[in-house]
Amino acid sequence: MTQEKNVLMEFSMTPLDKGESVSQYVSRSLDIVDKSGLEYRLNPMGTVVEGSWDQVLEVLTACHEKMSSDCNRISVSIKIDYRKGKNGRLLSKIGSVEKHLGRPVQK
Amino acid sequence: MTQEKNVLMEFSMTPLDKGESVSQYVSRSLDIVDKSGLEYRLNPMGTVVEGSWDQVLEVLTACHEKMSSDCNRISVSIKIDYRKGKNGRLLSKIGSVEKHLGRPVQK
Amino acid sequence: MTQEKNVLMEFSMTPLDKGESVSQYVSRSLDIVDKSGLEYRLNPMGTVVEGSWDQVLEVLTACHEKMSSDCNRISVSIKIDYRKGKNGRLLSKIGSVEKHLGRPVQK
Amino acid sequence: MTQEKNVLMEFSMTPLDKGESVSQYVSRSLDIVDKSGLEYRLNPMGTVVEGSWDQVLEVLTACHEKMSSDCNRISVSIKIDYRKGKNGRLLSKIGSVEKHLGRPVQK
Repeated sequence: MTQEKNVLMEFSMTPLDKGESVSQYVSRSLDIVDKSGLEYRLNPMGTVVEGSWDQVLEVLTACHEKMSSDCNRISVSIKIDYRKGKNGRLLSKIGSVEKHLGRPVQK
Repeated sequence: MTQEKNVLMEFSMTPLDKGESVSQYVSRSLDIVDKSGLEYRLNPMGTVVEGSWDQVLEVLTACHEKMSSDCNRISVSIKIDYRKGKNGRLLSKIGSVEKHLGRPVQK
Repeated sequence: MTQEKNVLMEFSMTPLDKGESVSQYVSRSLDIVDKSGLEYRLNPMGTVVEGSWDQVLEVLTACHEKMSSDCNRISVSIKIDYRKGKNGRLLSKIGSVEKHLGRPVQK
Repeated sequence: MTQEKNVLMEFSMTPLDKGESVSQYVSRSLDIVDKSGLEYRLNPMGTVVEGSWDQVLEVLTACHEKMSSDCNRISVSIKIDYRKGKNGRLLSKIGSVEKHLGRPVQK
């Protein structure tokens, strides 16, 4: 059975014990997300991944396993938007706002 | 092998299609958390659960399965604090702040 | 005119450049919250403050000013629940869940 | 004195009492952000605004004033990344991850 990709998950995962420059660690998570085969978008504050509930949590868990291999303290912030019967919202949500606004926005 | 309970997860899970009073739906999640056997605390903005990475995500998934059975759109906010080799932080984190402060706080 | 205390704000404010033990810095924020005169509760993942929109943002700003005095990178996570015409929800939200559940929870 | 634009704020502001389709309300916030003159980017889960601490909170407050004019219950999720002496991170943070990764990502 094909799982519905009705979940958008945004997450950011940050080590607290590696000083103020953490992009080295963030890039390893991006590598995992990128190779997962799921649709995603990186923004300045997090990564939005589209998939089923199980798919997005599997990616999150893989990122945590990698980071906890050499980081002692990790802070993770996650936001999930589930909508029954809706797919492709990685693109359509922005379009819907622009349609209501009547003009394009910065994205 | 016993899994380390080195994760604190705070979450709130809210239906967007059920109007402004949602405690009926929140209470079903609390029932699941309460029966999971994990240590937890409910606060006015979410529930903090203590366990291993897999244990807390399992509880989160059970709550989502229940809520998605009759809610069409669900917003979930999650924060995870992982700390290698540390257990019992559900209680000790507050104590540590009070110790630094030199007096008790409202909790 | 008395401002309605119709906002619950939960926040956590963490320096990223001070290593994995940060309760020293968190306790300074708690000192500010505690002396603000607003009702609040500390939980293991954040602090919930009750007040008007302006009041809770004022406390948040004071905490940020203090922390940025000696921290170079700061991560802040904030969740706000606004409900028109409702006061005293710092206590009543938990009670409402327990009423639906028909039994007390850990809090 | 020119204020440093050393803050990135991502926020999402959602009414809970308007049913599951809320892009009409989100678009009004985007209109406010867009006209603020601050740099911003809309993503599928929120809007990232770059400015000083006071500037980004001013935009947030304007969005809340608009939404609370006709919504009874509003949930706001906010994440702030402050970094002393750093400007232009709306663009540079993604570039830094790509540099570490050695290839471009979806953004």
